[in-house]
Amino acid sequence: MKAAVGQQNVVTKAADCWPYGYDNSRRHQLPAAVIFATSEEQVSSVISACNQFQISLVARGRGSGTTGAATAIDGGVVISLERMEQIIKVDPDNRLMVVQPGVTNQAVQEAAAVHGFFWPPDPTSSAFCTVGGNLAYNSAGPRAVKYGTPRDNTLGLRAITASGKSIKTGVSTSKGVVGYDLTRLLIGSEGTLAVITEATLKLTPLAESKRTLRAIYRDVECAARAVARIMAQPTTPCALEFIDGAAIEMIRSYSNAELPDHAGALLMIEVDGSESYLQHAVEAIIEAASVEGVVEIHAARDSNEVAALWATRKALSPALRKVAPKKINEDVVVPVSQLPALITGIETLAERHQITIINFGHAGNGNIHVNLLINPDDPEQVARAEQCLSELFDLVLSLDGTLSGEHGVGLEKRDFIDREVDTNSLALMHQIKQTFDPNNILNPGKTIPPLSDSSGASDSGE
Amino acid sequence: MKAAVGQQNVVTKAADCWPYGYDNSRRHQLPAAVIFATSEEQVSSVISACNQFQISLVARGRGSGTTGAATAIDGGVVISLERMEQIIKVDPDNRLMVVQPGVTNQAVQEAAAVHGFFWPPDPTSSAFCTVGGNLAYNSAGPRAVKYGTPRDNTLGLRAITASGKSIKTGVSTSKGVVGYDLTRLLIGSEGTLAVITEATLKLTPLAESKRTLRAIYRDVECAARAVARIMAQPTTPCALEFIDGAAIEMIRSYSNAELPDHAGALLMIEVDGSESYLQHAVEAIIEAASVEGVVEIHAARDSNEVAALWATRKALSPALRKVAPKKINEDVVVPVSQLPALITGIETLAERHQITIINFGHAGNGNIHVNLLINPDDPEQVARAEQCLSELFDLVLSLDGTLSGEHGVGLEKRDFIDREVDTNSLALMHQIKQTFDPNNILNPGKTIPPLSDSSGASDSGE
Repeated sequence: MKAAVGQQNVVTKAADCWPYGYDNSRRHQLPAAVIFATSEEQVSSVISACNQFQISLVARGRGSGTTGAATAIDGGVVISLERMEQIIKVDPDNRLMVVQPGVTNQAVQEAAAVHGFFWPPDPTSSAFCTVGGNLAYNSAGPRAVKYGTPRDNTLGLRAITASGKSIKTGVSTSKGVVGYDLTRLLIGSEGTLAVITEATLKLTPLAESKRTLRAIYRDVECAARAVARIMAQPTTPCALEFIDGAAIEMIRSYSNAELPDHAGALLMIEVDGSESYLQHAVEAIIEAASVEGVVEIHAARDSNEVAALWATRKALSPALRKVAPKKINEDVVVPVSQLPALITGIETLAERHQITIINFGHAGNGNIHVNLLINPDDPEQVARAEQCLSELFDLVLSLDGTLSGEHGVGLEKRDFIDREVDTNSLALMHQIKQTFDPNNILNPGKTIPPLSDSSGASDSGE
Repeated sequence: MKAAVGQQNVVTKAADCWPYGYDNSRRHQLPAAVIFATSEEQVSSVISACNQFQISLVARGRGSGTTGAATAIDGGVVISLERMEQIIKVDPDNRLMVVQPGVTNQAVQEAAAVHGFFWPPDPTSSAFCTVGGNLAYNSAGPRAVKYGTPRDNTLGLRAITASGKSIKTGVSTSKGVVGYDLTRLLIGSEGTLAVITEATLKLTPLAESKRTLRAIYRDVECAARAVARIMAQPTTPCALEFIDGAAIEMIRSYSNAELPDHAGALLMIEVDGSESYLQHAVEAIIEAASVEGVVEIHAARDSNEVAALWATRKALSPALRKVAPKKINEDVVVPVSQLPALITGIETLAERHQITIINFGHAGNGNIHVNLLINPDDPEQVARAEQCLSELFDLVLSLDGTLSGEHGVGLEKRDFIDREVDTNSLALMHQIKQTFDPNNILNPGKTIPPLSDSSGASDSGE
């Protein structure tokens, strides 16, 4: 390893390795070593060595994932890609950008903005998280409702497979159908198939302007109905965020946002486009959002007000962590017309299991962050939360939804995915894993349940 | 087979099987039998039987593909899905539609339009071609420049793998990251991995209105520069079609379109959006399209004029077939900024090899249909055309392009794809094929070059 990347780029002392044992799931596993790669060749050498000696290897950006996917569960080695942070090319004429995996999402946005473009994926952690991580999890954010996820916004990749071999997937063009789609197979595979060393990102022109609206509702059911109605009409918002009453109360304690008393739920709605279009768009949104139970719809007057609204929304996750450091944060998705049923179902679950649940999220995609606030030192409460979560997943699947919209699977949901993915598909996924990684060295144990456990995985979750 | 689908749904007489031996590549191979399936269960039974007896099976929609992918090269069996033409669900509230594979593209568009939506993929053959075929080839059309291809517009699939097992891939929501992306792996795989039995299509709201512009240029290089300039500014057209001078001359003979004399090239540019937005959009497009060498830019005054323009564009392929029934029609793609270099390069190739070449296509994606007009009875000319094609592919790849934008690989390009796809990726594709289809019964010999030939494939093409 030291020969491959240079002695100064390998750390093995426990104290040095410690911070690379975490991700944002609050799981921690001390890796045996952390290797800082700065080139594709180094990544290849490191993987080849791991493959030869059957050492497990976890690729890692900045560790802001929430599922444990970036933790080295069996004391393997972590390869940190944070030093591969070059923006190789910004090519506005072809609406693309070529970057190394360690570049932050924000650096991509800034480099693209100079030319009037942006890259749509925008996780809340965009100032910190890396593009490599965004691709590994297929992470999105508010803009996905109009502009899609990394799978919709990536043209091609370079990667190193588990045998240390380099592959180039996809194209540098906006169309291409030669061979199987390895690009999207790698995106969302959480470092279990290959390590991404370069990405060709598809850029989108920045809209000329935006309008931000805040709508307050009597209760969450009314807000959920408004979301479904907004998405059923043709003016697609570029953000449609949902915050429930309990979350609003929390925001009061952490920000100066002026919020009416007794707000049962809040929507933040953003539309973008040309100035001439926006007047029309705002009218269409207000019309659709004005369901029975609406208390107030307010268009932000200036950029300060817009910034305050987004600061409010983005403060939610950190605020929740302060209140409940061991909260369980799910990111389930249902078809938008099923949002009212989901919200009602969650209320029933919260009551039945006596768990405080706070909901917010990217409602335009039907993607709700369901936060179970628990005291981890109370085993009885933890058991209730686990039961509640299991029933939540069943509820989501009964509504034709999916267990994760953007956080991914990692370890957190691995033992639940056989409730969603059929046995035949899971078997194919295992075979694909084996094709890319015959010795099971790349992030082993993540994303798909181990075959031997798969028959019992459902039980262990229930 | 007869037990699986009923005696009346299996034909074996040569005369009955004959029409199912063609596709639009003008290749023909008589299949041993044609089976008309009407349900997923039947597809599964047929595949299981083929797998058991190691009979090769080619899934087929309406046979409008251009690469030979739907022909049964080794006298295998064809499974026709044209009778699985049910629209199972139109769900405008969730912006989706569930269909069987045999439904035509146009039927999808009509069913969606009732609710104010459309499905973006729109091959020229949309009135006839099936969604199953669109998915198998990842076929697109003019709208892809703004709205993407099937991979961008499909949420999930049901399919039967080569062992006859049913799988359900993807989600019913606009976001989802559970497990590997089997949906997009199947899309574009040309029936070599599984047979698609149902698709959940993502719908997009129909734009309020459209404007269509026609721009005439002195020569193709000027037009190519205009395309690059249009795509480098933020107003993305919903169609940006290119027709070269030779094609314009041909259109004169086949339509009543009024075209100025000595037009070197023509662009058809369409923008869509709200009425209030379009004025601005048209101005932006005219500004960008007004490069040196522009002769005239004309906005269509009414729907008749728009219809005439599109009729002109859509008449091109059939007109070319009349002039040159054995024309070679390629659909290469380059980054749009490389279009001028591609067009210049093609002119050089045409001259060097003394081949008449006509170019048109979806220029906004850099996707050009390069038509080599040849007399198939002139072996010397055929040899020159083959050499010309080989050099065209090298040119495209040297410009960072791809060999196919929407037609796919099938047999026509199979022996060239190792010039584009690296050896390691090809090996992975072979292994993926083996994972889904261990007995190599599903459309064998298509899409990826046989392993044993792969070292020599490049030579055979040169």
